[in-house]
Amino acid sequence: MIVILKPQVEQERIAQLMASIERQGVAIHYSQGTQETILGLVGDTTHVDEDWLRASDIVADVRRVSEPYKLANRRFHPEDSHIDVAGKKIGEGNFAVIAGPCSVESEEQLLEVAAAVKRSGATCLRGGAFKPRTSPYSFQGLENRGLELLREARRVTGLPIVTEIMSETQLDDFADVDLIQVGARNMQNFRLLKELGRSRKPVLLKRGLSSTIEELLMSAEYILAGGNDNVILCERGIRTFEKMIRNNLDISAVPVIKAKSHLPVIVDPSHAAGIAWMVEPLSRTAIAAGADGLMIEVHNDPKRALCDGAQSLNPEQFDGLMAGVKRRVAFEEKKLL
Amino acid sequence: MIVILKPQVEQERIAQLMASIERQGVAIHYSQGTQETILGLVGDTTHVDEDWLRASDIVADVRRVSEPYKLANRRFHPEDSHIDVAGKKIGEGNFAVIAGPCSVESEEQLLEVAAAVKRSGATCLRGGAFKPRTSPYSFQGLENRGLELLREARRVTGLPIVTEIMSETQLDDFADVDLIQVGARNMQNFRLLKELGRSRKPVLLKRGLSSTIEELLMSAEYILAGGNDNVILCERGIRTFEKMIRNNLDISAVPVIKAKSHLPVIVDPSHAAGIAWMVEPLSRTAIAAGADGLMIEVHNDPKRALCDGAQSLNPEQFDGLMAGVKRRVAFEEKKLL
Amino acid sequence: MIVILKPQVEQERIAQLMASIERQGVAIHYSQGTQETILGLVGDTTHVDEDWLRASDIVADVRRVSEPYKLANRRFHPEDSHIDVAGKKIGEGNFAVIAGPCSVESEEQLLEVAAAVKRSGATCLRGGAFKPRTSPYSFQGLENRGLELLREARRVTGLPIVTEIMSETQLDDFADVDLIQVGARNMQNFRLLKELGRSRKPVLLKRGLSSTIEELLMSAEYILAGGNDNVILCERGIRTFEKMIRNNLDISAVPVIKAKSHLPVIVDPSHAAGIAWMVEPLSRTAIAAGADGLMIEVHNDPKRALCDGAQSLNPEQFDGLMAGVKRRVAFEEKKLL
Amino acid sequence: MIVILKPQVEQERIAQLMASIERQGVAIHYSQGTQETILGLVGDTTHVDEDWLRASDIVADVRRVSEPYKLANRRFHPEDSHIDVAGKKIGEGNFAVIAGPCSVESEEQLLEVAAAVKRSGATCLRGGAFKPRTSPYSFQGLENRGLELLREARRVTGLPIVTEIMSETQLDDFADVDLIQVGARNMQNFRLLKELGRSRKPVLLKRGLSSTIEELLMSAEYILAGGNDNVILCERGIRTFEKMIRNNLDISAVPVIKAKSHLPVIVDPSHAAGIAWMVEPLSRTAIAAGADGLMIEVHNDPKRALCDGAQSLNPEQFDGLMAGVKRRVAFEEKKLL
Repeated sequence: MIVILKPQVEQERIAQLMASIERQGVAIHYSQGTQETILGLVGDTTHVDEDWLRASDIVADVRRVSEPYKLANRRFHPEDSHIDVAGKKIGEGNFAVIAGPCSVESEEQLLEVAAAVKRSGATCLRGGAFKPRTSPYSFQGLENRGLELLREARRVTGLPIVTEIMSETQLDDFADVDLIQVGARNMQNFRLLKELGRSRKPVLLKRGLSSTIEELLMSAEYILAGGNDNVILCERGIRTFEKMIRNNLDISAVPVIKAKSHLPVIVDPSHAAGIAWMVEPLSRTAIAAGADGLMIEVHNDPKRALCDGAQSLNPEQFDGLMAGVKRRVAFEEKKLL
Repeated sequence: MIVILKPQVEQERIAQLMASIERQGVAIHYSQGTQETILGLVGDTTHVDEDWLRASDIVADVRRVSEPYKLANRRFHPEDSHIDVAGKKIGEGNFAVIAGPCSVESEEQLLEVAAAVKRSGATCLRGGAFKPRTSPYSFQGLENRGLELLREARRVTGLPIVTEIMSETQLDDFADVDLIQVGARNMQNFRLLKELGRSRKPVLLKRGLSSTIEELLMSAEYILAGGNDNVILCERGIRTFEKMIRNNLDISAVPVIKAKSHLPVIVDPSHAAGIAWMVEPLSRTAIAAGADGLMIEVHNDPKRALCDGAQSLNPEQFDGLMAGVKRRVAFEEKKLL
Repeated sequence: MIVILKPQVEQERIAQLMASIERQGVAIHYSQGTQETILGLVGDTTHVDEDWLRASDIVADVRRVSEPYKLANRRFHPEDSHIDVAGKKIGEGNFAVIAGPCSVESEEQLLEVAAAVKRSGATCLRGGAFKPRTSPYSFQGLENRGLELLREARRVTGLPIVTEIMSETQLDDFADVDLIQVGARNMQNFRLLKELGRSRKPVLLKRGLSSTIEELLMSAEYILAGGNDNVILCERGIRTFEKMIRNNLDISAVPVIKAKSHLPVIVDPSHAAGIAWMVEPLSRTAIAAGADGLMIEVHNDPKRALCDGAQSLNPEQFDGLMAGVKRRVAFEEKKLL
Repeated sequence: MIVILKPQVEQERIAQLMASIERQGVAIHYSQGTQETILGLVGDTTHVDEDWLRASDIVADVRRVSEPYKLANRRFHPEDSHIDVAGKKIGEGNFAVIAGPCSVESEEQLLEVAAAVKRSGATCLRGGAFKPRTSPYSFQGLENRGLELLREARRVTGLPIVTEIMSETQLDDFADVDLIQVGARNMQNFRLLKELGRSRKPVLLKRGLSSTIEELLMSAEYILAGGNDNVILCERGIRTFEKMIRNNLDISAVPVIKAKSHLPVIVDPSHAAGIAWMVEPLSRTAIAAGADGLMIEVHNDPKRALCDGAQSLNPEQFDGLMAGVKRRVAFEEKKLL
């Protein structure tokens, strides 16, 4: 970390600042230039607060040389991680397709979709039991009954289940969920992240709508810092000025995250596009970008879906998508789980 | 709500769609044009899901004529609301200044700041006991000890206290907080919003970093729909491409919210700017825009603040700010609480 | 086009509005609903101004059913277009790679790069003679000398040349440029677009940094409306809040433009990423998304480049990139030109 | 300017880099730390290209301590500038109101609006003769006939005239325009900026829709560097994700520009809001923020305006606005010109 001081500061003030920095267990390399005085902080600066340094009236700027995340950082963990979800190892060349309806709506609907996505080669079954909806008047999910139906669908198909948690108070109810999803709106729900860090459950952490890549990695760091290594990241589109699509899939996030972190990254083209016909082309780009998996909404009757029907594929469309996914995953020399 | 159908759809398909809409308790005015067929939905369409309609393959577009929020809507509540915070009525021409440190750090710090802001004319004391920090390695607040110190500061100064809640599990601990703040990152923590709706505590709801104004009003609607009318909204800057400031204060949000809703709106220039010297000019614009109050960070020693020091005013700066605030609030013919 | 009127408007006012619309050669289908009155405009509404309609105090909203572009619209031209650049037909399954330095710097530099990219299989040579630089103090290009060197490089290698125009006053000087580039900052330089419409030169139109896809298509429409059909579109990244990359490559723009328009679309990963190592992964996503080509910066000595060196590949890196491009273009069943 | 080198670089490579920097007339202060080697560039670094430095594979990062603009920089010109527009000095406590129609449409329209805005106290008359329209099918302005009508309106009312230039080829035709406007879409039309730098005409430079404040100042620097000191900046809203308004007025741009530059800044609330009722509240915030003027669209019959009618005030509304502007400008201890 480099601290650039303002010009013409009294030596006494500089000495005071250096003393408070050193009290945080960090050594300082002092460099007096013609224009600027620069303090180079040496050692583990993860705990040194940039805001605190910037607040000093003798500091002109602060610049991190090393990233503020450590456990999520590829620098300290050069090999790819894989995350074990009910025996399926996602990452490290193993590609996962998580598919299912936006919301669990009924036994019939879920079992029909689950059987269909299994038949087409999906790795895991997704389905929302608790739904984060913008409007209090929209369908909020079947809640605990939805969790039961997911368990039943798992029993019938053998597919591991993925579903979204809304609060740390639900952790007991989610104890046998195979992969717990943290939604985009909860990416910085730090209470929830801390409790997930205390558990050992695999977590699928979705990027917030306007979160930076660094913020996503810092939220992963919360879970890792609690002792839970089982984190998969998910890019699902960012909010921009464009009106023709719902969100802009940030495809460069995939190679950037891969360069910065060892954690697996999957892509959710359904939420990014917001419209069914875009799911297939965006899936192609995700595979080409190096993603470790896809998360796809499938509904047996999208026109009657209680949520996000516009972006859901029907089982036939999903089957067509999977044919292409298989060819492309093989082209990238990865293995479809 | 207007549903525009695609051209050349079979009458039978249209009849099916109309039947499913009518089952939701809404009447339909059918209009067959040369180019398009249009369904005008008549009645309370708040519960009709746009996504569900868009998913139909015979629907070209859906357009809401009425807003999706009802209780927060000025149309159904033309008079300004005021919210009673420990006897101080915010809104309806009464202007509030909420001031205090970003974080509660120690008894000495808090009492010193509280006495100073009271002396300068603040309405309420703010201070974070639980801090939502991007990094798990940053200072996370004094937690329950921070709440105790806030109560003590209230006892000493008589100022109502404002502090941020992180989870619905904390509601009991926050029972005697005068105004419970929901932070930007939790604006769409729907579990928390629902529980706040069940309480009757005044809530200060901050806008998310890239939330639309409509989403902010929908989050307020969650609280109102639970039966809790005591909601104050807070504009605190949005995330854009600009690098010279931390966030872009969205000043037009103030008149837009005032036009759409009856709820009071305050502005937080400290978080928007991210730098102390910008707080005063942005405060001027907030008052001119018609805001019902300001939320200002004040620290007795900003250079040593454990959080957000760069944007904190010291007590002398705050006193100078308040002199201008008083003149400007009077110019707008409002009353400083 | 659908015009939704406000409730309870006097019939006389409505009749006046309808008369002024009809004077523009458009018929109206009038529909009186319970809540709203709706005017359906029938015929060619391309020339009807939405702003003008919205300005009426009896109009609640205006909604286009048909797009405001006609000549660029796939609806009226369902087949893919291909654009002939010095005998090479770009589009319709023919994939082009345009490569070369950001700026033409010297004869030696340009000839060396030109020979290298030709050897690796590039379709066209790019090189800036006139450079749009943010700073007046940065290198502005070799100007007319740069054009001469490009002609020489074409003579030596046989590669068609692509270079950026800055003003319509340069059209004569650009008469023998094979593909004239309009840069992102000039995407809405309407004088320039109109003059390019009067010429018959192939134009490479780059998307502005925060232009919507519709605005890009409207700028293409300016050229097409002048009678020049030879337009290739280029996605080159949009400006967002993210700090780890220079621009966010909007990969969904490729399938969206392909759905809306018949014009070829190429992708510039060099400017999007702003950093050399990202060029290869982004190129992979562009091919997978269905782009008709790539535009890649190559410099014989990136470290000494006078402009945008950070994102330039050296000839060896470009050769490696092209090996992958060839395999991937073949996988997509396209032909590399 | 500070150049941070990567760790463990060979001394020979460093020496080469330092030599090429020194060849650009800049001295270097070399500092060898434990973690990093830092080069402090001393002297006038305005001409040193950051991109060129970043391209070096031994450079980790580059950080400007001084701004890349010099003539626009308040550091080298601490006093406010005022710009003389036909004898009216804008800036330095003198507040200007530029008002008139979006487009000049007819003699009758322009003279009626000009008389009205003069009567209400406007400083200058605006009116577009050449219109930058997104669609080639929209009204493009009366062109040279529009310029004639503006001259006539000036003759009749005595108001200086402000109108937008589209290309440097029009400079002769604009020779007697009192204040030449460069529109948002042309903010980085560098050919035009350079030619305006060669003239001595006052220029009103509008900020691009997603231009940073630094880019706006760099575009001003182009004009100043040509020898033309007469530049007024204009904030007119930036493009964000918000849908309720057309653009987000970036109110913090006013104090930021005032801190960084000595040039006058005016605000265009009409284009920012895109809707007439928002013009008044946004004008209030502009005055409070410290702007040196306002630019307001006024039309004698907004409902029939050929462009941007939705945001135009009629003469009575403008008169009401001006009553408030006068009181507020006086409150800020400025003088309305």
